[in-house]
Amino acid sequence: MKKSLIAFVFLAFAFGCQEQKSDEKAKEDPSAQKTDPLPSWNEGENKKRIIQFVENAIDEKNKNFIPIEKRIATFDNDGTLWAEQPAYFQLIFALGQIHKMAADHPEWKDEAPFKHVLNNDMESLMKEGESGLLKIVMTTHSDVTVEEFQKQVKEWLKITKHPTHNVLFTDMTYLPMQELIDYLKVNEFKVYIVSGGGVDFMRAWAPEVYGIPTEQIIGSTMKSELTKTDSSVQVTKVAELEFIDDKEGKPISIQKFIGKKPVIAVGNSDGDLAMLQFCDDNELPSLPIYIHHTDEEREWAYDRESHIGKLDKGLEEATAKGWIVTDMKSDWKKIWKWE
Amino acid sequence: MKKSLIAFVFLAFAFGCQEQKSDEKAKEDPSAQKTDPLPSWNEGENKKRIIQFVENAIDEKNKNFIPIEKRIATFDNDGTLWAEQPAYFQLIFALGQIHKMAADHPEWKDEAPFKHVLNNDMESLMKEGESGLLKIVMTTHSDVTVEEFQKQVKEWLKITKHPTHNVLFTDMTYLPMQELIDYLKVNEFKVYIVSGGGVDFMRAWAPEVYGIPTEQIIGSTMKSELTKTDSSVQVTKVAELEFIDDKEGKPISIQKFIGKKPVIAVGNSDGDLAMLQFCDDNELPSLPIYIHHTDEEREWAYDRESHIGKLDKGLEEATAKGWIVTDMKSDWKKIWKWE
Repeated sequence: MKKSLIAFVFLAFAFGCQEQKSDEKAKEDPSAQKTDPLPSWNEGENKKRIIQFVENAIDEKNKNFIPIEKRIATFDNDGTLWAEQPAYFQLIFALGQIHKMAADHPEWKDEAPFKHVLNNDMESLMKEGESGLLKIVMTTHSDVTVEEFQKQVKEWLKITKHPTHNVLFTDMTYLPMQELIDYLKVNEFKVYIVSGGGVDFMRAWAPEVYGIPTEQIIGSTMKSELTKTDSSVQVTKVAELEFIDDKEGKPISIQKFIGKKPVIAVGNSDGDLAMLQFCDDNELPSLPIYIHHTDEEREWAYDRESHIGKLDKGLEEATAKGWIVTDMKSDWKKIWKWE
Repeated sequence: MKKSLIAFVFLAFAFGCQEQKSDEKAKEDPSAQKTDPLPSWNEGENKKRIIQFVENAIDEKNKNFIPIEKRIATFDNDGTLWAEQPAYFQLIFALGQIHKMAADHPEWKDEAPFKHVLNNDMESLMKEGESGLLKIVMTTHSDVTVEEFQKQVKEWLKITKHPTHNVLFTDMTYLPMQELIDYLKVNEFKVYIVSGGGVDFMRAWAPEVYGIPTEQIIGSTMKSELTKTDSSVQVTKVAELEFIDDKEGKPISIQKFIGKKPVIAVGNSDGDLAMLQFCDDNELPSLPIYIHHTDEEREWAYDRESHIGKLDKGLEEATAKGWIVTDMKSDWKKIWKWE
């Protein structure tokens, strides 16, 4: 965990909830929407290439036809389907949980790193470094059944607002990506999330928000064990990392969970590069897509130097290989549904 | 690996290919087949309960209705969907591969356990114990890309016959289970295999044989790593066990891969008991099913004392809880499609 990331968390907490965006819906032409599968995308080369790829894939007479069982699309989540600034939302959740759990842990008021979280003293928390944050994640994500953990996530999502945009975190999802998911589903692609985020965290809300079932959500995992009582059989999360679903971990987990290379893979950072390469290597026609954060006004602008969602090598390779690089500022007519 | 299992392997090799079953198809009434979703099952309480469960599950007005996204059915493979005698077929494959690989390994003719396999000296192989057999599995299942490994499996399946029944191993699948899978699929259940067998082994043939896609096949795994060259990105199997998908491993992997409890779970051994308990604990209506090997004439008869597919505690619990225990001899009109 980079120090600057922790600094972002601090900033998020210190200056949270300043901005209130208008909920007014953009006025759209309903007749145009009917025929355009991606109405929140501006016309242009990228939109055209995506639609052409899908139209070829479903046309049995086209040389780029893809049989239904091979229509696998994998999406990163943080920074690709929803925002990841000023810090990964799952980390903001973990910090919030420490506050909530503190009543049962009076000892935390004198114990680092917990006391720093409770005192909103992000500078001191920052000094605890990676091991301090890992302790916070472990404490809030283990010794709990998956069922109970997901209840906690759902509860938090229902009441907590994003620190700068002041909307629910589930409203920090990108409308153009929702449209892309729906477009692919209608055309019988099986859409997966393949994220560095925790799988149990995402499965608590992503099925409802994206319409992607739990079995199509892959993420980082903690070890787990079976807890049997007379009245129940539950899986309990254990305080030990099992698998980090990032970088080369992504193609490895795609092979393990899905068993075939994706024909579409979408990401936004160097952490997604191996997944996009895996997609690019498909013997079938394939479409690796990067989302480039270029809109500091409506969203955030960051890439090569960022500590969250760093996109450096990926940008080089995408350019060299002619992959789609979606420019959020120019390609997306609308980013948020509440815009 | 139990010694008796190894003895079975020996017997399989020593007395293989004795029996030739008739390929003559049983004459069935086509009009009866049209309305009966399970024509190879005899009429009786078990068949009635399965059909009733499915009919309730798809009837929105029924109190036992199950929403489509919750219709998860998990099947063990060895001994549940195909036979597992006289030894697990994957082990027979591994022994065959040693013979095939021997040309590139002249040193094996003097090296245990390989020399015993090459000499068909099962007695000596048996003396090498579990570590000897593990070495054989590791040697034949690692340092190979998943793609190349699956080619080897497919090739083997195409030409190798079962040692006593003299049909292809893929013809050692149970017709009544094929019908059950098809029946569930038609009624929008998502059917998974959750097996102690190796996932890459099963994914080489099960999609075609059962109509279950690779992403719905869960099994034991070896560790793996990414192999990138200028021309390809491949996942390579590494010689280290990662996860044994048996006993309590089954509900743990169901949680990890699927993220919800099954409403139907089918197994044949104590290794499936935790999966059936996990299914039984579903808050929705659920149906745990055991397959009991009772037909020594058409298949094999074994349970409490067997070293392969031991069914002891599971039988107790199934009886106590009123789960379905399918009696192969009396419940199945036809076991094999070539019967």
